[in-house]
Amino acid sequence: MDVDPIVDAVRTAVGVDGPVLLHAPCFDGNELKYVSECITTGWVSSAGSFVTEFEKKLAEFTGAKFAVAVVNGTCALHIALKLAGVMPGDEVLMPSLTFVATANAAAHCGAVPHLCDIEPRTLGLDAGKLREHLNSVAERRDGGCYNRQTGRRIAALVPMHTFGHPVDLDGVMQVAQEWGIPLVEDAAESLGSYYRGKHTGLFGRMGVLSFNGNKTITTGAGGAIITDDEHLAKHAKHVTTTAKLPHAWEFVHDEVGYNYRMPNLNAALGVAQLERLPELLRQKRVLLERYLQAFAGICGARIFTQPENCESNYWLQTLVLDEPDMGLRDAVLKALNDSGLQSRPVWRPMHQLAMYRQCPRMDLGCTEDMAKRIINVPSSPFLVKSGRC
Amino acid sequence: MDVDPIVDAVRTAVGVDGPVLLHAPCFDGNELKYVSECITTGWVSSAGSFVTEFEKKLAEFTGAKFAVAVVNGTCALHIALKLAGVMPGDEVLMPSLTFVATANAAAHCGAVPHLCDIEPRTLGLDAGKLREHLNSVAERRDGGCYNRQTGRRIAALVPMHTFGHPVDLDGVMQVAQEWGIPLVEDAAESLGSYYRGKHTGLFGRMGVLSFNGNKTITTGAGGAIITDDEHLAKHAKHVTTTAKLPHAWEFVHDEVGYNYRMPNLNAALGVAQLERLPELLRQKRVLLERYLQAFAGICGARIFTQPENCESNYWLQTLVLDEPDMGLRDAVLKALNDSGLQSRPVWRPMHQLAMYRQCPRMDLGCTEDMAKRIINVPSSPFLVKSGRC
Repeated sequence: MDVDPIVDAVRTAVGVDGPVLLHAPCFDGNELKYVSECITTGWVSSAGSFVTEFEKKLAEFTGAKFAVAVVNGTCALHIALKLAGVMPGDEVLMPSLTFVATANAAAHCGAVPHLCDIEPRTLGLDAGKLREHLNSVAERRDGGCYNRQTGRRIAALVPMHTFGHPVDLDGVMQVAQEWGIPLVEDAAESLGSYYRGKHTGLFGRMGVLSFNGNKTITTGAGGAIITDDEHLAKHAKHVTTTAKLPHAWEFVHDEVGYNYRMPNLNAALGVAQLERLPELLRQKRVLLERYLQAFAGICGARIFTQPENCESNYWLQTLVLDEPDMGLRDAVLKALNDSGLQSRPVWRPMHQLAMYRQCPRMDLGCTEDMAKRIINVPSSPFLVKSGRC
Repeated sequence: MDVDPIVDAVRTAVGVDGPVLLHAPCFDGNELKYVSECITTGWVSSAGSFVTEFEKKLAEFTGAKFAVAVVNGTCALHIALKLAGVMPGDEVLMPSLTFVATANAAAHCGAVPHLCDIEPRTLGLDAGKLREHLNSVAERRDGGCYNRQTGRRIAALVPMHTFGHPVDLDGVMQVAQEWGIPLVEDAAESLGSYYRGKHTGLFGRMGVLSFNGNKTITTGAGGAIITDDEHLAKHAKHVTTTAKLPHAWEFVHDEVGYNYRMPNLNAALGVAQLERLPELLRQKRVLLERYLQAFAGICGARIFTQPENCESNYWLQTLVLDEPDMGLRDAVLKALNDSGLQSRPVWRPMHQLAMYRQCPRMDLGCTEDMAKRIINVPSSPFLVKSGRC
């Protein structure tokens, strides 16, 4: 298969000459104004009104009752898993095809990732395969779900919405319910993505968002826990802000806490970015249409589109090769990057990384297949405005 | 004892009417310029030149061979302890009189704080008492130091330089050497503090700095690991940036990593703040002189001054009551805060917090004594410029 038509199609879709990043932020709203306000007032750190405003606006946008802003998505997931009850020595079910942060967050709890396969139509957890797998390896005892092969408790189930595309939440929730396993959504990539009209991250006990520099909106680094559970939200806020009890001057902390709060400076950027989010999401859909059009006549590869009953944020536009072919995948990646169109494959699956190679897992056929077929192509929303931010 | 003369003396020293914060940042250098540059160029996140520049300038200022910027001091200490070899189930020697982050960082390693007493002349670890204590509870075996009473390995010794005043590093280092315990300095409060002419944080395997909003300089939130050991520095950088191997497009990570990097936006603030640091340190010494003068005639309380052979940054100016008297301490705190002079006691000692109450410890007589005598009073450097930033 010739790679040139693919490069040409991507170039046509982005509509810009010269180098194009995979995903760049755009700060043409109130970003500079709000950040400057932090500097001129001196409120850049843990105290300051932008953190509260960011949390409020984030809750409004997602429809969550509560949002707790933290320092990044990894730390958000670490705390969400802890509050969901994950303890050292437990296992956490998650897709093998994910950014390493999902597995690391479990490891930071002292827990072991238990790696699951995905399905091609969502690129996320395959609920049917997960059920079959649990039926064969798990048992319910002592009020929990246990892996009979390792003896460890299976303490949480973490679906991840790959590139912003919602997983089969109906299916996944049903398995979680059948086995009594708490659900925590890794929605790091899916701000602005909806499943049956409800925002991702709100289907389990907690959901986790990320505002890293390459995400749909950014706070420099940042993340959040969203939940409808007031107790969990309050506890998340408490434990991410050193677990200090309120007092005029005394320093009393009542549990082992974390310094995971989002600084006001970063929240200021986030408030401005949230104001632009609806427009960014609109632009991402326009970009998708341009990719679909450019790839209409291409054989051997297609542009991935949202699963049924979902509205995806299309965080990263995704090219899927018809066949799993590592040689072809890398040839396309090289050609795209050589011509200035920054592109990347999907993450190396977790079971292929040295530190997670020994983790319990099911058959990962689809994961291995898709890892040889996925290429993310330039996805900045502003590309649809003549490539200018 | 009457509290009014104390309030009057503090008011005289700060030289400003109206409310005065305990410690506020001052952004009258290039802060706005550099932060704006991040926004206009779009480089706010993990990539960007300010992080590298901040690390370089921080190494230059402290005289460290290497500096690794991270998201805050707690996370810096967590990683420094891990890289020093602290494992789950180990113990970490540290003062009971410290901010809770010191103990939390050990807990985040799965380790147990082992709480030590301080001496009045430094407010930091009492090396003599530590030696006596180890002689009575510790033993060397299997190439390590073990607590005979708990059976746990004593994996690290963490002196903390309280309010910026260096501890007796000669004494502490000697004990560490005698027992073969790795030294990691919690220098979160002592940027700009020197022991026998060498910057604090450079006496052990690694040292940890903090740039929280109330510190001598701030990055909103931020911290750093400083070390002369190239291998440790490289490993710290690697593991705080998700342990990703360099590659044009592949996502391969070779160990359990953390998302602890400092964003470029925050580093930009830090670069500007570092430019001003020498002047800030000078101003803090002027403020000290004003406190000393204002308290010259006061009975029952004195202003704490740097230990012998040390140059302190005087991060927080410190009032020490002649007698341990919780009633008097709180009366002074109330009077100061009521009159708009934001003041606070020292942290509640770790052995008095619920989650660390069961930790192994030595006699903590001096800690308990000083906790009833210390009051931190307004310390912003800009107070010496007619209270204006």
